[in-house]
Amino acid sequence: MRVVVINTGTEILLGDVLNTHLTFIAREIFPLGLRVERQISVPDGTAIRDALEENFERAELIFVTGGLGPTTDDITREITAELLGLDLVPDPEMEISITQRLRTRGIRMTDRILRQAQVPRGAAVLPNENGSAPGLYLAADLNAASASPHLFLLPGPPRELQPMFLQSVVPILQRIVRQEEAFACRSYRIVGMGESYVEEAVGVQLLALDGLELGYCARMGEVDLRIIGSSEVLEKADIIVRARLSSAIFSTSSENLETVIVRQLAEKKATLAVAESCTGGFLAHRLTNVPGASEVFLAGYVTYSNEAKISTLGVTPGAIAEHGAVSETVARAMADGARETSKATFVLATTGIAGPGGGSEEKPVGTAYIALAGGGETVVRHLFFPTDRETFKQLATQAALNLLRERLAKI
Amino acid sequence: MRVVVINTGTEILLGDVLNTHLTFIAREIFPLGLRVERQISVPDGTAIRDALEENFERAELIFVTGGLGPTTDDITREITAELLGLDLVPDPEMEISITQRLRTRGIRMTDRILRQAQVPRGAAVLPNENGSAPGLYLAADLNAASASPHLFLLPGPPRELQPMFLQSVVPILQRIVRQEEAFACRSYRIVGMGESYVEEAVGVQLLALDGLELGYCARMGEVDLRIIGSSEVLEKADIIVRARLSSAIFSTSSENLETVIVRQLAEKKATLAVAESCTGGFLAHRLTNVPGASEVFLAGYVTYSNEAKISTLGVTPGAIAEHGAVSETVARAMADGARETSKATFVLATTGIAGPGGGSEEKPVGTAYIALAGGGETVVRHLFFPTDRETFKQLATQAALNLLRERLAKI
Repeated sequence: MRVVVINTGTEILLGDVLNTHLTFIAREIFPLGLRVERQISVPDGTAIRDALEENFERAELIFVTGGLGPTTDDITREITAELLGLDLVPDPEMEISITQRLRTRGIRMTDRILRQAQVPRGAAVLPNENGSAPGLYLAADLNAASASPHLFLLPGPPRELQPMFLQSVVPILQRIVRQEEAFACRSYRIVGMGESYVEEAVGVQLLALDGLELGYCARMGEVDLRIIGSSEVLEKADIIVRARLSSAIFSTSSENLETVIVRQLAEKKATLAVAESCTGGFLAHRLTNVPGASEVFLAGYVTYSNEAKISTLGVTPGAIAEHGAVSETVARAMADGARETSKATFVLATTGIAGPGGGSEEKPVGTAYIALAGGGETVVRHLFFPTDRETFKQLATQAALNLLRERLAKI
Repeated sequence: MRVVVINTGTEILLGDVLNTHLTFIAREIFPLGLRVERQISVPDGTAIRDALEENFERAELIFVTGGLGPTTDDITREITAELLGLDLVPDPEMEISITQRLRTRGIRMTDRILRQAQVPRGAAVLPNENGSAPGLYLAADLNAASASPHLFLLPGPPRELQPMFLQSVVPILQRIVRQEEAFACRSYRIVGMGESYVEEAVGVQLLALDGLELGYCARMGEVDLRIIGSSEVLEKADIIVRARLSSAIFSTSSENLETVIVRQLAEKKATLAVAESCTGGFLAHRLTNVPGASEVFLAGYVTYSNEAKISTLGVTPGAIAEHGAVSETVARAMADGARETSKATFVLATTGIAGPGGGSEEKPVGTAYIALAGGGETVVRHLFFPTDRETFKQLATQAALNLLRERLAKI
């Protein structure tokens, strides 16, 4: 089934907002055997009409996002109705639901808001739990003189689209998809190895397997290896991948590194605290993004100033004066100090120079010390990530989490 | 000038990786008077050829991202050369630069890596400071029998593409763009007001201005209002917007809320600490993402457990027992305690229930208390964000930063 995603919104093409819909939709339809063949972003206005018309022939299933809201530049609903030759009619249930929604939240009703209850005749309404604009589904009309594909019109804000997709779109897709089209895919998330090393380790042997599609994707601090094919060929490929990459694989699902860590800590009934300088709270943020993190995560100390390192973590002023705040000695003292304060089983500590300022010849921007205390001797790794500030934080937290992952594997 | 962005990569269409290129490119070309007319994502393989061919007529300028790397699914370079009827020739300088780059990093050379030094004859090489694959520029050939647009082939990883774009692509664009095409745009970032309220406040008056293009974009916890037109009409619109939205506007540049806060604190020589429970380090992370944050940000206390609230912030066990950890009393105690510990001018504190677990009838998932200490009486706001965990963290930190912004405006 040929699937096309059309994202509308001038704000997307002006770069004001990041388009996250493709990632979400692609992941959700994959288990149904569906893959997006093409994705297109167009500004508001007549461009939506062109993109729809062009893809009525190309696609059997089209997801349109955006342009269903209350403002004057939201015209997806109107253009779709016009293209399909359908009237727009008010949906009484939607009117009630929008009115109730506003009342609960103490928001005053306006004409513009009520316009969202207009529905092309015959369309199925997909309720919106997190906003006032409902989604719409128009079934394919493949036998008509001018054939049209299955059409889903979905709201632009991700927090409206995503629950709607899971609750209303997926069940409809399950009905319209022929299950025998499904194919299989496995992915391996690898940490601590570069992309070309991963390919060198497994590439030749995997390419020798007939009917295997292979993809590598380098992300910040990790490489994802993806294999697609029949379940038979995937079994063979899996043996090769596991034999050659073994301990560098941290996940074979969509679980990210922090989710794996939180799960493993919970399984071992262990707890974690973090003491952060250069990563500035990002390590705590990644860990607390995992639902249920409160079971294992006790505390984070973002000791950005020297005073905070001294008063909160018990780092000695002498250690900072002698070695500098960015040093092996201070990283170790932060980890040990936070362990004493928090009583956690494990502590990860980071100190370094994220940049753009603060570097020196001896300790250039990108220098990082990552320490792990608990479950054995306290260890410190000296690393170097000469990059921008946010990438630095990503790479340094990734290295810290991997240090803990390696220790957890040995316990 | 008609601009098209083509992003290649099966990983994008499978949803394995978020496509950030459009946002970056759109923002960088906007000051040159260029706007992206359409963006397309296609998987690796022959789809790149189709997308390029289709757009040779539509576009005068095409940016292609991805498919220049060392692995076997990287074929953008080869397909482009073939479409334009150009040979691929090794570039000796590139071979030297790639070899040196690997040597410095202690990475072993392979044939695959060296393939990245192949260049379509006549193409300009765009150096890559952060990776081995160079970018390529092929000038438009608009007089040829089969006309071709300006073509930029750029690497897939953002940390390679972005510096290359700024250093090599922008100077070329400045040469090829006719400056008189430039138009003006202003944007206003608004916090604490919903999208339809913003439109109600300014919409009618702005729409009455001839030649003004208007766009609203609702992000998490903020609304961006964008106006495009001649500088004359923008002046008129600016007066309307500022008169009616005034203090809700926190930025008229690309500065985000945390950058505004850090700048304002530095101007006032004030310092900040944060005490976080439900936001789990995200508030510290947002603030420390701002270059130079260390000047004003002293410390963050991610007191996830009750024990950490008691031992680190001096919250009394009695307050937690009587009111619960998620309460106005505890939010206030966290802020006041962190102010005493950190000696910061201001402290923001958060406690709440991010979910999905942990809610009760009295305090459902989404409940948040945000406190601000310093610069006046300690205040606590009781808010409700019934949403997913990460959106909750975004909205709660946005509300906290706005609380501080409002107080800073009065000092």
